[in-house]
Amino acid sequence: MSQFKKIGLIGRPGHAGVVDSLHRLLTFLKSRDVDIILDDGTGKLVPDHGQQVASRESLSRLCDLVVVVGGDGSMLNAAQSIASENVPVIGINRGRLGFLTDVLPEEIELRLSQVLAGEYSVESRSLLQLELLQDGERRHLGCALNDVVLHPGKAAQMIEFELFVDDRFVYSQESDGLIVATPTGSTAYAMSAGGPIMHPALNAIALVPICPHSLSSRPIVVGGDCEIRLVIGEKDSILPQVSCDGEVKFSAQAGDQLIVRKKAKSLRLIHPPDHSFYEAYRSKLGWGSRLERKDD
Amino acid sequence: MSQFKKIGLIGRPGHAGVVDSLHRLLTFLKSRDVDIILDDGTGKLVPDHGQQVASRESLSRLCDLVVVVGGDGSMLNAAQSIASENVPVIGINRGRLGFLTDVLPEEIELRLSQVLAGEYSVESRSLLQLELLQDGERRHLGCALNDVVLHPGKAAQMIEFELFVDDRFVYSQESDGLIVATPTGSTAYAMSAGGPIMHPALNAIALVPICPHSLSSRPIVVGGDCEIRLVIGEKDSILPQVSCDGEVKFSAQAGDQLIVRKKAKSLRLIHPPDHSFYEAYRSKLGWGSRLERKDD
Amino acid sequence: MSQFKKIGLIGRPGHAGVVDSLHRLLTFLKSRDVDIILDDGTGKLVPDHGQQVASRESLSRLCDLVVVVGGDGSMLNAAQSIASENVPVIGINRGRLGFLTDVLPEEIELRLSQVLAGEYSVESRSLLQLELLQDGERRHLGCALNDVVLHPGKAAQMIEFELFVDDRFVYSQESDGLIVATPTGSTAYAMSAGGPIMHPALNAIALVPICPHSLSSRPIVVGGDCEIRLVIGEKDSILPQVSCDGEVKFSAQAGDQLIVRKKAKSLRLIHPPDHSFYEAYRSKLGWGSRLERKDD
Amino acid sequence: MSQFKKIGLIGRPGHAGVVDSLHRLLTFLKSRDVDIILDDGTGKLVPDHGQQVASRESLSRLCDLVVVVGGDGSMLNAAQSIASENVPVIGINRGRLGFLTDVLPEEIELRLSQVLAGEYSVESRSLLQLELLQDGERRHLGCALNDVVLHPGKAAQMIEFELFVDDRFVYSQESDGLIVATPTGSTAYAMSAGGPIMHPALNAIALVPICPHSLSSRPIVVGGDCEIRLVIGEKDSILPQVSCDGEVKFSAQAGDQLIVRKKAKSLRLIHPPDHSFYEAYRSKLGWGSRLERKDD
Repeated sequence: MSQFKKIGLIGRPGHAGVVDSLHRLLTFLKSRDVDIILDDGTGKLVPDHGQQVASRESLSRLCDLVVVVGGDGSMLNAAQSIASENVPVIGINRGRLGFLTDVLPEEIELRLSQVLAGEYSVESRSLLQLELLQDGERRHLGCALNDVVLHPGKAAQMIEFELFVDDRFVYSQESDGLIVATPTGSTAYAMSAGGPIMHPALNAIALVPICPHSLSSRPIVVGGDCEIRLVIGEKDSILPQVSCDGEVKFSAQAGDQLIVRKKAKSLRLIHPPDHSFYEAYRSKLGWGSRLERKDD
Repeated sequence: MSQFKKIGLIGRPGHAGVVDSLHRLLTFLKSRDVDIILDDGTGKLVPDHGQQVASRESLSRLCDLVVVVGGDGSMLNAAQSIASENVPVIGINRGRLGFLTDVLPEEIELRLSQVLAGEYSVESRSLLQLELLQDGERRHLGCALNDVVLHPGKAAQMIEFELFVDDRFVYSQESDGLIVATPTGSTAYAMSAGGPIMHPALNAIALVPICPHSLSSRPIVVGGDCEIRLVIGEKDSILPQVSCDGEVKFSAQAGDQLIVRKKAKSLRLIHPPDHSFYEAYRSKLGWGSRLERKDD
Repeated sequence: MSQFKKIGLIGRPGHAGVVDSLHRLLTFLKSRDVDIILDDGTGKLVPDHGQQVASRESLSRLCDLVVVVGGDGSMLNAAQSIASENVPVIGINRGRLGFLTDVLPEEIELRLSQVLAGEYSVESRSLLQLELLQDGERRHLGCALNDVVLHPGKAAQMIEFELFVDDRFVYSQESDGLIVATPTGSTAYAMSAGGPIMHPALNAIALVPICPHSLSSRPIVVGGDCEIRLVIGEKDSILPQVSCDGEVKFSAQAGDQLIVRKKAKSLRLIHPPDHSFYEAYRSKLGWGSRLERKDD
Repeated sequence: MSQFKKIGLIGRPGHAGVVDSLHRLLTFLKSRDVDIILDDGTGKLVPDHGQQVASRESLSRLCDLVVVVGGDGSMLNAAQSIASENVPVIGINRGRLGFLTDVLPEEIELRLSQVLAGEYSVESRSLLQLELLQDGERRHLGCALNDVVLHPGKAAQMIEFELFVDDRFVYSQESDGLIVATPTGSTAYAMSAGGPIMHPALNAIALVPICPHSLSSRPIVVGGDCEIRLVIGEKDSILPQVSCDGEVKFSAQAGDQLIVRKKAKSLRLIHPPDHSFYEAYRSKLGWGSRLERKDD
């Protein structure tokens, strides 16, 4: 019998394919000896579901497995509350890339059957927490599965800041900002800005400058337990913003100090048995496949 | 006798070094048989100048040489009105980089003497003009010496657009925007975004994507007489902005078409006799100097 | 009646698809009122051709159109002799990328019919010539359609050299070498090394460093009529090599001076009527296609 | 009293500055209660030294501290034998960059006094070992502190290979080769090829392609305990070479399998008490220094 008895469903709103997959999921799960709980918004997507409903916040607390239906963005949205409760999550991909949501819609029954039968691997994905350091006190600003990004609120203007790692001064920089990325985020915005791809299991944080003014700036990879501190420079009239996974959390002023470090609790991502990180990347990024052998 | 008889002075406000250089310039020019005209704002920087004053707009029309004192930003500001009147300009560098303002403050007398004696080179720097294409009509939005930049008004969100060159479709792109740069602008923002350095005499335009979502995007260099057209995509809720030399000129909506092409009139930049474009780059960008020869 | 009366055929040896295309070409051309001449090696690929045969060198002199069947490498091989005689060339693509050979094998009859009917565009592709400057004399070393490359003969060792453009010193550099690329070559090796894509009609040369030791090195684009001069540094024991389109032409010694400049004669490349440079790039490089319109 | 009683000296031959520093070192160490042992070659550089001499191989076994005088190259040369014996090492910089040799020649007495007094930090730098996998057996080919590099023996020709990490297929690639770099090596050749900078304490390996043919190739950072496997492709006539820290160790043939993984023993690098990794990088790479505060 499966270890997963209470299964939560979260679906991205406003997408017909998500509704299809939710129906298919409901049909499949009802045939199994499990309890189903939908979050508020998801319940409204499939009005005739006939199952228990809970708020997004309480969902993770009530379930022992969460299924997210949508794109990577949906997983980013759900990650914080799920990670806080340490409940594992699996994603059905209804988006475009699907680095985080690796079950195809047509494989729902196959893959969920495997997972319920205990055939799966669990991957731990670290999250970042963002704090404001003011007068010696730390104020929580947000969490991120991909990245914390410092950027000009006003576009087309460079910002200036200082970077410290574990209280060691690294550099001052004029640029369009800085991306502090987890391995998960290394294939998102950080990759667009020229950062390296990091294996999800690597305990590391990447510091990727966005359009740096100086030619000598390069992405830096530091240990995952380092504390990153950004001190906003005194440039006139710019109020740089700080985002977590693309959502603005704070407008900074000159002298403000922002602290980014790994959250204590990670996201436990469940994969079907034959999942390969590299295969996902290969197909999504267009890397070369196996070479043909003359004797093949 | 010098061919330059009426010399205009433009100085960047709010900088003590600029005032020093203006005084030194006035002392030097008064000793020569030339007329001096200051633009409005510049006159206020040196209240006791005792010379003719004119508006920025009319200055270029009245003079046969303009001297700009400040950084490259001051030259960018002045470029349009100066270029329109086809009057040559020379820059005294009181800024940091000084790709455009290549006379050092301590060389004012030496270099200006050379220029007045006819010892100089003239370089033609192309400008871009930005137009909005609506219902078959073109509305002028602005001009740029460095670059026209399409970027998200809201930071931390990708925009989507289509690029056409001479009415040929090039690509659609999701990114933080696109830089359309002149050779002059190739050492400015375009360089931060990974674009190539272009020699100022090259008749070319560079199209440099900013943090493109796709790994296959690369800077493209096309002929300087090409017409660049950007068509804004239909992404919800973003109003991308268009800037000329860093100044926002327009907030675009889905479907808007922006046209960028070379202005008919170029900026005529005057250099002291021994000026080398590459030497300027070498010192400013830290390129390697001459190798030592064993037998030297 | 067609302006092309004498048509030369050059096929890449050792490729079954090329033989197929040659047979199809022969069948098609025999049905037209044209003379057919095969080069030596190509004749051996289709032994029963029954047409005139000529050496590769004389082929271009005898024909008023050359058809190259193979990949871009075949076109590179054939380019020099063809360009010297100013005869136009069209390529049938039996290779992988086909930036230069843009007729698909299954379109041979369609495209050749158009071309013989005068429906085509001609594009002029510049070539580079490489010379050694010794004791004031210039010795011809080779020609290139893509690029002239300076690289260590021994791999895994950096070389040191000085770069001059039009006798102006640009920089000294330690690196794995330098690529001097035409616009045609900008999508070949120069692209792998981080150089910009240049439109084929641009009169320009790109100077792209290979793995430069210094972070401040960047690709530079200069005018197509510039003279590039490389002076080999005095590093012990390395004899850097110089290649044209991938073929080693010279082993350089410390102090050797290499001159690269545009050849007087260009390659005249013929395209079918609806050819778009950008479309070719889009499909080959995976750039984004047209955006969907809501009202489409 | 110092924990270091037997101190070994290794100096780079053929450099006058190294001889000066060796004399200064000898004078300083003779004044302390320590035994001094020079390696064979180093003894010949300072013929009148009057101290014990040992072979390079036995030096590390006999000493409890090794001082290397030279550049980073000297440290690379000495690293293997030193690491094997687990003896700590400190570097006097007589080279250019000095990422590994961070004591300045004029600070010899100050820094060595601190170290002998127990004031220092120790950093563990991982090394890589390279093996050939043939018929199920592994043959040792070499070790590297910076990097193992696969590259064409013949320059100017691409090689083709497959990459596996922990027996998972990653990609096939056509390129000028691949750099497998330690964090130490991330500021060496890997940086020239566009790889990220990695903090020395990070347990990671970077896989950096050299001029990859495909635009989608990017540097990848994986865990430091991963096993990297390269399988040589079947390209005609190329025998790719494999180097350790720049020294060719093997000429590979089609089908050969190369294994790279972390050595069991690391190099124990000693730094003076106020050493900062980031400060070294800042000064060597030209990163921005602290911002000025208005109220400073």
